[in-house]
Amino acid sequence: MTKKLRVGVLGAGRIGKIHVENLCHSVPNVEVVSIADVAVDATREWAKQFGITSVTADPLEVINNPDVEAVLICSPTDTHADYIIAAAKAGKDIFCEKPIANDLEKTKAALKAVAEAGVKLQLGFNRRFDRNFRRIRELVQTGQLGDVHIVKITSRDPAPPPIEYVKVSGGIFMDMTIHDFDMARYLTGSDVEEVYAKGAILVDPQIGEAGDFDTAVITLKFADGSIGVIDNSRKAAYGYDQRVEVFGSKGSAAAFNEKPTNVEVSTEDGVCTDKPLYFFLERYMGSFAQELQDFVTAVLEDKEPPVTGKDGLEALYIAIAATQSAKTGRPVQVSEVR
Amino acid sequence: MTKKLRVGVLGAGRIGKIHVENLCHSVPNVEVVSIADVAVDATREWAKQFGITSVTADPLEVINNPDVEAVLICSPTDTHADYIIAAAKAGKDIFCEKPIANDLEKTKAALKAVAEAGVKLQLGFNRRFDRNFRRIRELVQTGQLGDVHIVKITSRDPAPPPIEYVKVSGGIFMDMTIHDFDMARYLTGSDVEEVYAKGAILVDPQIGEAGDFDTAVITLKFADGSIGVIDNSRKAAYGYDQRVEVFGSKGSAAAFNEKPTNVEVSTEDGVCTDKPLYFFLERYMGSFAQELQDFVTAVLEDKEPPVTGKDGLEALYIAIAATQSAKTGRPVQVSEVR
Amino acid sequence: MTKKLRVGVLGAGRIGKIHVENLCHSVPNVEVVSIADVAVDATREWAKQFGITSVTADPLEVINNPDVEAVLICSPTDTHADYIIAAAKAGKDIFCEKPIANDLEKTKAALKAVAEAGVKLQLGFNRRFDRNFRRIRELVQTGQLGDVHIVKITSRDPAPPPIEYVKVSGGIFMDMTIHDFDMARYLTGSDVEEVYAKGAILVDPQIGEAGDFDTAVITLKFADGSIGVIDNSRKAAYGYDQRVEVFGSKGSAAAFNEKPTNVEVSTEDGVCTDKPLYFFLERYMGSFAQELQDFVTAVLEDKEPPVTGKDGLEALYIAIAATQSAKTGRPVQVSEVR
Amino acid sequence: MTKKLRVGVLGAGRIGKIHVENLCHSVPNVEVVSIADVAVDATREWAKQFGITSVTADPLEVINNPDVEAVLICSPTDTHADYIIAAAKAGKDIFCEKPIANDLEKTKAALKAVAEAGVKLQLGFNRRFDRNFRRIRELVQTGQLGDVHIVKITSRDPAPPPIEYVKVSGGIFMDMTIHDFDMARYLTGSDVEEVYAKGAILVDPQIGEAGDFDTAVITLKFADGSIGVIDNSRKAAYGYDQRVEVFGSKGSAAAFNEKPTNVEVSTEDGVCTDKPLYFFLERYMGSFAQELQDFVTAVLEDKEPPVTGKDGLEALYIAIAATQSAKTGRPVQVSEVR
Repeated sequence: MTKKLRVGVLGAGRIGKIHVENLCHSVPNVEVVSIADVAVDATREWAKQFGITSVTADPLEVINNPDVEAVLICSPTDTHADYIIAAAKAGKDIFCEKPIANDLEKTKAALKAVAEAGVKLQLGFNRRFDRNFRRIRELVQTGQLGDVHIVKITSRDPAPPPIEYVKVSGGIFMDMTIHDFDMARYLTGSDVEEVYAKGAILVDPQIGEAGDFDTAVITLKFADGSIGVIDNSRKAAYGYDQRVEVFGSKGSAAAFNEKPTNVEVSTEDGVCTDKPLYFFLERYMGSFAQELQDFVTAVLEDKEPPVTGKDGLEALYIAIAATQSAKTGRPVQVSEVR
Repeated sequence: MTKKLRVGVLGAGRIGKIHVENLCHSVPNVEVVSIADVAVDATREWAKQFGITSVTADPLEVINNPDVEAVLICSPTDTHADYIIAAAKAGKDIFCEKPIANDLEKTKAALKAVAEAGVKLQLGFNRRFDRNFRRIRELVQTGQLGDVHIVKITSRDPAPPPIEYVKVSGGIFMDMTIHDFDMARYLTGSDVEEVYAKGAILVDPQIGEAGDFDTAVITLKFADGSIGVIDNSRKAAYGYDQRVEVFGSKGSAAAFNEKPTNVEVSTEDGVCTDKPLYFFLERYMGSFAQELQDFVTAVLEDKEPPVTGKDGLEALYIAIAATQSAKTGRPVQVSEVR
Repeated sequence: MTKKLRVGVLGAGRIGKIHVENLCHSVPNVEVVSIADVAVDATREWAKQFGITSVTADPLEVINNPDVEAVLICSPTDTHADYIIAAAKAGKDIFCEKPIANDLEKTKAALKAVAEAGVKLQLGFNRRFDRNFRRIRELVQTGQLGDVHIVKITSRDPAPPPIEYVKVSGGIFMDMTIHDFDMARYLTGSDVEEVYAKGAILVDPQIGEAGDFDTAVITLKFADGSIGVIDNSRKAAYGYDQRVEVFGSKGSAAAFNEKPTNVEVSTEDGVCTDKPLYFFLERYMGSFAQELQDFVTAVLEDKEPPVTGKDGLEALYIAIAATQSAKTGRPVQVSEVR
Repeated sequence: MTKKLRVGVLGAGRIGKIHVENLCHSVPNVEVVSIADVAVDATREWAKQFGITSVTADPLEVINNPDVEAVLICSPTDTHADYIIAAAKAGKDIFCEKPIANDLEKTKAALKAVAEAGVKLQLGFNRRFDRNFRRIRELVQTGQLGDVHIVKITSRDPAPPPIEYVKVSGGIFMDMTIHDFDMARYLTGSDVEEVYAKGAILVDPQIGEAGDFDTAVITLKFADGSIGVIDNSRKAAYGYDQRVEVFGSKGSAAAFNEKPTNVEVSTEDGVCTDKPLYFFLERYMGSFAQELQDFVTAVLEDKEPPVTGKDGLEALYIAIAATQSAKTGRPVQVSEVR
């Protein structure tokens, strides 16, 4: 496997930059050929350190660059579907940040283009690549926990996003819980049939005025009969809280927060350890590198990517059902949305 | 406070015996004067070790014994309400195992008798007296966690009860989750307004045939706007799993399982510790002694008992609402039941 | 085993009172018949709650009381040997607080009297009865850790004793480390051959002026070739620190501190748990009850007590060797002292 | 700070390769200009992936290459001193793997050459750069633990090296414990005055036949009066065991093992987590990158490197003293060796 995959990157914002760094430093068998970003000059200056000289303002130039075999879509959400369609038509394999789109129509159109072109599409549900969660998935798949009965996911942000972002985010279930919906499907290997979402506004009344919730508990009924529960908050005083637990007929497995150090300090004031890693980029740093490595391998070895377009669609269905449930106050069948 | 409270005990089964032992060995300022149990001879023989000589088959004899100032009701559930009424009429203070009754009418009749007689009534929600849960309640009450946003309770039994018991138990929400409903109210200090219960039959199909669930996730909406979630299973392969977490605006507090020892063993096979204490009597041994000590103190010092009749009634309301919710598949307002 | 052992108690100070309470409340098949203490009136008043009416100032009255089958010696250290000899001559079985004496001659004389009288003697090395340490001993004895290679004992007090006590204590190795020397022998099941003790005065210069150390690290060479290390401090800011670790060819086992609760609090300030139990009576409460129960059982069933006179003697040898080592700055063979 | 440091590497064995990878991927402001290794062809092939084309069999060619500003010495131990001297004479800054040499004469000669040339020398005591140990050092330096009283280091390998290596290793204290001696100095910021080392042969008799120990406990007396203790084993069944604890007048801080995941699995068999990371390269991966980053920064900003030649010399003194102590059975003053 000495061939290198030649990649073009659309969007060099926060997450795009991280992907480029990982591709250049941590992922073997890949080469970043070209980058598109509106801030051409700044991007060109930044890209120099990686020896990347092809920088343009026009995404289509990257997509249609004959030297580019695969495209990373890291641009704003509302452009994802269009770029997926353009890249698919150009016959390029695609890695796209989640979500494909916040509405079903655009999502389905993108997936249709991918299917018709026969290209690969991997979605950026990076948490699947976290070593702890991956280990729990393995325990489930190898039967060491028996049949799954209950899945619990705790997912709390350290601080709410700016209120302007909240207003266009699609709501907490589309923006934040969608990661947890995907995690629930990933851990159990089962689809979700029913959603009951209970939202509350306890962190910031402005979030409520924007028509959204900042605190939520969501109950999931899986196709295999098991039950899931997710709890979300936009603000945990102690940092980014990301834990999961799978309880099955043979036992239970739990993953805990990661911390800057494991040092325990005992003084007159108590016995204390570090707070969880505060920022999602620190917390999931390893998973961002791993997802790209798996994407490159899937393309080079012609295998199915580990997160498919269907995974994106299913998570979107659940998020839409959750949004409806929280607004109507009743459980919603995912089949109502599908 | 050198006065001793003279107590009569109705029912010397498993829990009754534990209460008598605690009263004789671990609780100061109390004397067990008389015991009623259908198995008179065996009880008399057993009671000798404590120097208790008055043993009878007739509960009313104990209730009306002029030497008895307070009564402990440890007899089968269907007798609780009647004995409460009889004891109240006799002017005796009352400690009664939970629940007062599985139906509202009898429960209300018993509480009415207690109120009319002006006697004290404490209910046996022993988990409130567990040192770990009590500590979390203190953290909530002293404001160290800020406003409560989310409460999580994990409550899993090591093994399901006999199927014959399941049939007459009133169902998992009345029999098992009722402890967790009380815990939710205890930890938050807030009443429950709405219940959504999702049940499943994953442990034993016989439980389903008996019209009950063996696995459940229950979402609670509290009067103060916060959200609670309880997960239950009738069978955890690793033992009795009893954990709680309160998440508030200033932080989070979690209580974990208690274990036989804290020894950690590292070998080629992994790094392992003991399983949780398997049996509820071991797990909550300290809480059984503490609840009686607090009852005796409340009576001798003429203070309100730490678990009141209202607490029993509220937990029952929630359990009835949960049962209705699981059966109808919709959230149920507790006010529909009240 | 319905027979009750009739016990007399010499000394009703702090530890004597605890033993009486345990005998009356937590230990089956035993009866406290009589107590001797210089503070006769206060003791008589205190003993009433247990229904004990025979209280005297004269220890010999208790020892020679024909109703007394076994004697608990809880009086000051310098009286232990004499009372052991008197009790042995009177044919009474004996539980004696550690140490028998701080010098070898008196210790040997006491053991000789016990041997000649053929009575039982159990020493109050209570830590052997702690559930955590006992578990580690079981892991060693059942071979689950393989051959023992290294034993580590951390033993730190929350605060130094009064300087007047330090002056008559026999020094840190005789007074404090002696418990750890016994623990080392208990965990490994092996005798100590060589001791190297390094002492320092870091907590309080007055302790140094009194000719003692307040901080120490002691290396032990066992007869089976394994190595032990103990670290001591008279003052740990966070409370009573009592941990052990046994490392063997198949793995390692460690016991940690016990805490008031297991609650973990996460806030902006960190993730904190309780400090260790501060006071040795709280920390070892369970072990005090267990050692008496095992003593009573050993006498009633005519078995060897779990801590023998030889155990006391061996610990004393090691303590003497450690004292010499710390003063001379060289390793000392226990055979030099024996 | 946009200047890049141009580095030459001597020796591209296991550790040399890791350093090159880190320099190319994880350390900013550095460029690997040339590599010397006896296996020229294989090294040239391997180096291609980093775009390094200058590969030679002759270390002096790298040292004297005018394009090379600093040299990394990753060749066998017995060449370190000579290459240090050559590099110093050539005016190059130096990063050298530990130790400089196993004897004092060569070590001192190398340090003399460095001093005379006025170049920088950093030694590869990589553990100082581990995030956990670094945190404890910070706690000591900022006074949060008060005065240091006791330092404890546990350092156990997962498996002994080949017996042929043992024979030329200089012995356990020179080969393995030397890292812990440096850690002791690093954590406390104090020099060691006295060493008492107790060795044993419990893992493999062949190690004893080679004149070495495989198990050891070492007591250190520091210049500030505090005491240290290190325990070593060549074989821990559960993997690489690397923990430290610093106990001071205000409290204690402990660092624990790192594990592949933090997942906890609860089944009928117990509650288990992963074993520690088995291999030192996994365990200390982060520290290898960090030490080079700090070296590059020290050179580019003309600051003193974080591990100096004196640090290497002091660790060697202690190791020699420990070797003498274990052989003679008495404590050895480091001043006897200096």
